[in-house]
Amino acid sequence: MTDPTACLLIIGNEVLSGRTRDANLQHLATELGKVGIPLREARVIPDVPETIVATVNDVRARFTYVFTTGGIGPTHDDITSECIARAFGVPWEVHEESRRLMEADYARRDPPVSMNAARLRMATLPRGAAPVVCKETSAPGFRMENVFVMAGVPRIMRSMLEEIIPTLEGGRPVLQRAVHADGLLEGNIAAALEAIQAKHPELDVGSYPYYRNGGNGVALVAKGTDEAALDAAAAEITAMIREFGKEPVQGEPPPAAAG
Amino acid sequence: MTDPTACLLIIGNEVLSGRTRDANLQHLATELGKVGIPLREARVIPDVPETIVATVNDVRARFTYVFTTGGIGPTHDDITSECIARAFGVPWEVHEESRRLMEADYARRDPPVSMNAARLRMATLPRGAAPVVCKETSAPGFRMENVFVMAGVPRIMRSMLEEIIPTLEGGRPVLQRAVHADGLLEGNIAAALEAIQAKHPELDVGSYPYYRNGGNGVALVAKGTDEAALDAAAAEITAMIREFGKEPVQGEPPPAAAG
Repeated sequence: MTDPTACLLIIGNEVLSGRTRDANLQHLATELGKVGIPLREARVIPDVPETIVATVNDVRARFTYVFTTGGIGPTHDDITSECIARAFGVPWEVHEESRRLMEADYARRDPPVSMNAARLRMATLPRGAAPVVCKETSAPGFRMENVFVMAGVPRIMRSMLEEIIPTLEGGRPVLQRAVHADGLLEGNIAAALEAIQAKHPELDVGSYPYYRNGGNGVALVAKGTDEAALDAAAAEITAMIREFGKEPVQGEPPPAAAG
Repeated sequence: MTDPTACLLIIGNEVLSGRTRDANLQHLATELGKVGIPLREARVIPDVPETIVATVNDVRARFTYVFTTGGIGPTHDDITSECIARAFGVPWEVHEESRRLMEADYARRDPPVSMNAARLRMATLPRGAAPVVCKETSAPGFRMENVFVMAGVPRIMRSMLEEIIPTLEGGRPVLQRAVHADGLLEGNIAAALEAIQAKHPELDVGSYPYYRNGGNGVALVAKGTDEAALDAAAAEITAMIREFGKEPVQGEPPPAAAG
């Protein structure tokens, strides 16, 4: 089997305008990586029906799994669900089980919340969709073939993803070895690092400068699915750093202080 | 003149793997918004030459301006510049002025840094490109027709963008009015809010729930270029919130405590 791949669509004018900083891409990428489904592309697109429909149809044909975040709330700018129905050419209709679950939840609230036309939109799904019910809200996400539709609010997105992950057919988990060293300069080690990459074509060897109060340096990260190759690359990177007179430290550098 | 549009390409395996959280989209969107160039799409793509070339050629034909971040350092995984040359069908060659600037900078460093093959890659540009020299580094970004190529490191990206912004032909600045209220529920106000949006089709009216220690609520944000329409919409939103028995507060809600 070819390893599965994933694409994320972040849907929402608020991300493109700079009002809201996306907090879902990194979480999704990390969780999918653990189950061997590398994220291969992400797009941020506006709340424009034609754009959403065309983009969904483009990427669902090219990736094993597509995930969307945003646009499934009750207001007029929440159009993701309706657009998914259009993309698949199916009716968009009230999903009775979801409606019952939401009404039962609303009846328990204090103060009580009433079902109305706006909230009923959140129980309206493309025909054939399977709802994704999570711990954070009774309004569902859903799966339509290989497309998973999730909320944009990070707390709810994470809860929905937790339900989705066990249902996916994963691949070989992507593992990594990181080595970093203060005082290292990318421009000095580039040729030696390229030789290590060339020796391990099955790995992805990356070089990431960091800037910290305590000192600048470079983190060298090998990623891949072959443990033996990763260990060999990490040993070569470690030896290479010593040859350049710096002190290799296993693992990623500590995070920068919040700025 | 039609208002200009922009697209951002975030290039780098490290963003797609979850190792690095992008910090450039929000800054670019905000700065472009100020000069009336709305960001209409963003894509995160991997360090794969065919993907970079095809994506650049797709989006440079569809948007007024294209910005890229990432992949212009000295290591083997820094392939953006070379791929831009391929996308435009021009040679990728040493830019002598950039080389001289970098060598002069290296000569001043303590300890001294030497020009080598890896660093020379950073002075190698598509034929016809105009370098973007910034305060943070002597290795340039560049402009190639309507495509602006910037570093991925946020400090350097911001410095390059500062040089680029005054060279762009802007449009009408996108302005906004925000009103928020604790205790408001999106599902209650959705119909009334949709009526306000319908009354102002030239504006983009968005609804954004927030979750704070002090209390949950909703922020309602009108965006557009027409000040009078924005003021009218804000007044209508304010009155609408009062009708629902909540206290409207002008402006965005305070940021959530870091979590």
